[in-house]
Amino acid sequence: MAVYTRVDAEDIEQFLTRYDAGSLVSAKGIAEGVENSNYLLETTTDRFILTLYEKRVNPDDLPFFLGLLDDLVVAGLPVPPAIRDREGRQIQQLAGKTACLIQFLPGVSISHPTPAQAAATGKALARMHLSTADYEPTRQNDMGRPDWHKLARDCGPEGLNAIHAGLAALVDSELEFLDEHWPQNLAISAIHADLFPDNVLMLGDEVTGLIDFYFSCTDFTAYDIAVTHAAWCFSDDGLTFDSRISDALLAGYEAIRVIPEKEREALPVLARGAALRFLLTRAYDWINTPPEAMVTRKDPMAFLNRLSFYQQHPDVFSA
Amino acid sequence: MAVYTRVDAEDIEQFLTRYDAGSLVSAKGIAEGVENSNYLLETTTDRFILTLYEKRVNPDDLPFFLGLLDDLVVAGLPVPPAIRDREGRQIQQLAGKTACLIQFLPGVSISHPTPAQAAATGKALARMHLSTADYEPTRQNDMGRPDWHKLARDCGPEGLNAIHAGLAALVDSELEFLDEHWPQNLAISAIHADLFPDNVLMLGDEVTGLIDFYFSCTDFTAYDIAVTHAAWCFSDDGLTFDSRISDALLAGYEAIRVIPEKEREALPVLARGAALRFLLTRAYDWINTPPEAMVTRKDPMAFLNRLSFYQQHPDVFSA
Repeated sequence: MAVYTRVDAEDIEQFLTRYDAGSLVSAKGIAEGVENSNYLLETTTDRFILTLYEKRVNPDDLPFFLGLLDDLVVAGLPVPPAIRDREGRQIQQLAGKTACLIQFLPGVSISHPTPAQAAATGKALARMHLSTADYEPTRQNDMGRPDWHKLARDCGPEGLNAIHAGLAALVDSELEFLDEHWPQNLAISAIHADLFPDNVLMLGDEVTGLIDFYFSCTDFTAYDIAVTHAAWCFSDDGLTFDSRISDALLAGYEAIRVIPEKEREALPVLARGAALRFLLTRAYDWINTPPEAMVTRKDPMAFLNRLSFYQQHPDVFSA
Repeated sequence: MAVYTRVDAEDIEQFLTRYDAGSLVSAKGIAEGVENSNYLLETTTDRFILTLYEKRVNPDDLPFFLGLLDDLVVAGLPVPPAIRDREGRQIQQLAGKTACLIQFLPGVSISHPTPAQAAATGKALARMHLSTADYEPTRQNDMGRPDWHKLARDCGPEGLNAIHAGLAALVDSELEFLDEHWPQNLAISAIHADLFPDNVLMLGDEVTGLIDFYFSCTDFTAYDIAVTHAAWCFSDDGLTFDSRISDALLAGYEAIRVIPEKEREALPVLARGAALRFLLTRAYDWINTPPEAMVTRKDPMAFLNRLSFYQQHPDVFSA
């Protein structure tokens, strides 16, 4: 959430000459997205996001992400494609980093979504899933179930218990439960895998952008519904479940893509998995980020609270 | 250089209803300026910078800064005024902070200025000085000569010598020299006091913005020339003086405002003072910023090198 790599305006001007994208009028480093450096550029013809990929994103994964975005644009989804230069290249080098010039999309990220906004997001997610089912390239989910075991080991029982007394045992038993009950043979597609309100741009009740596809991967389509549900339907601290948001999100989704019975039955387990995934990545970051660092540590407890909710309320996904 | 205070998009939308400024289309936290939180806003009618003032800026000083900007706008200078709401207020409260909605200006900050760009900046600075001479409110320079003594004491001899062997003695003797030779009775006006290339927006060779007036104060007009000279005429590390930039900056300035003989004679001492000012503030930040903090520490040595240059080359300001 910072600008890690500083690029001189002169170098951005030079970079833009590779494209038919006008000449530079303004460049502001923006604090957003996963650990990349982003500049909001205004040129004489348009606006763009210039992204320099830092350590979080493996440049080898970019063809998967960018190809997916291109397909979604063709399908009419409001996602930001990487612009091609005059020679057709999307992936560039700038200031020693892999870099892309990306279409700017209007809209703001909502902090406290309304049911109408949740419904619109459910529709957009379903529309995305109808398209991504046909996306042929694959990318393994590197925040998937096997990785949760590794994250738990890396946190260590002491690290987890320092966050919350008894958390290590809770995580162990949940991992065991999920290994035992994780669904099989559900429909697979490319999924966003991180569709928090931060990653949805809106104007009023309209979705104007689905962004930040840098966790996208090939996994159960229904897992994406579970992640989005965990991301949207609770207060920040995870203590309050908002059934109106949940109902609107699921109804919006089903207005476009009916959730097959088998997926619906799996959602309670998938949602527990989604809650555990964010609990563990946040716990890992919590343990490995010194409190004095100028980075906001997101509280892992917010997802332990969601996990508890899903453990106690499997019925929340019933039709 | 980070976003310290997060403001919800919904709160920005609400905030904008106080103004005739359109409704919100986009809001991006931007990493720029002194220690404030800044958002680049796009509305249905215009673009703005939303600034939330953090600890560096004393809200009591805002009327001085904003009044100065208003006067400079009237004088035709490209500076960003704070927008007034429907009731005429410029200074607001938002997210628990003092906040202003500020006009967006196009242009980029140049990292390696050309002589033509330095000349344009010299002209803009002189044009500003012609106007600021009439600005009646006053604000004491809180980074002035008495404060350098305090900064040196706060750094302590050990702190300074840890940065560079012998630095404490160097600073002491320079402070003594400046106390003895600091000019008297030069023309006084409101000055920018921090006109680094970062704080000048340009399109090609044209100055499109003078920004970040949060160090502006009432002091010798010629001291502003000295600060700008120290900020523009050296390589980043201060080891290489660029006489073409220096000549262009001063010639550009004098195309608008002839530097009186008395000011010209004082410039070598004022420039030593300017170099020491940034040496000391950088040394203070260096000593008080842990190396692992995610903030770029600016190297104090870059201004020790400038100080050495000015000590050895008082002739650089000769007509």
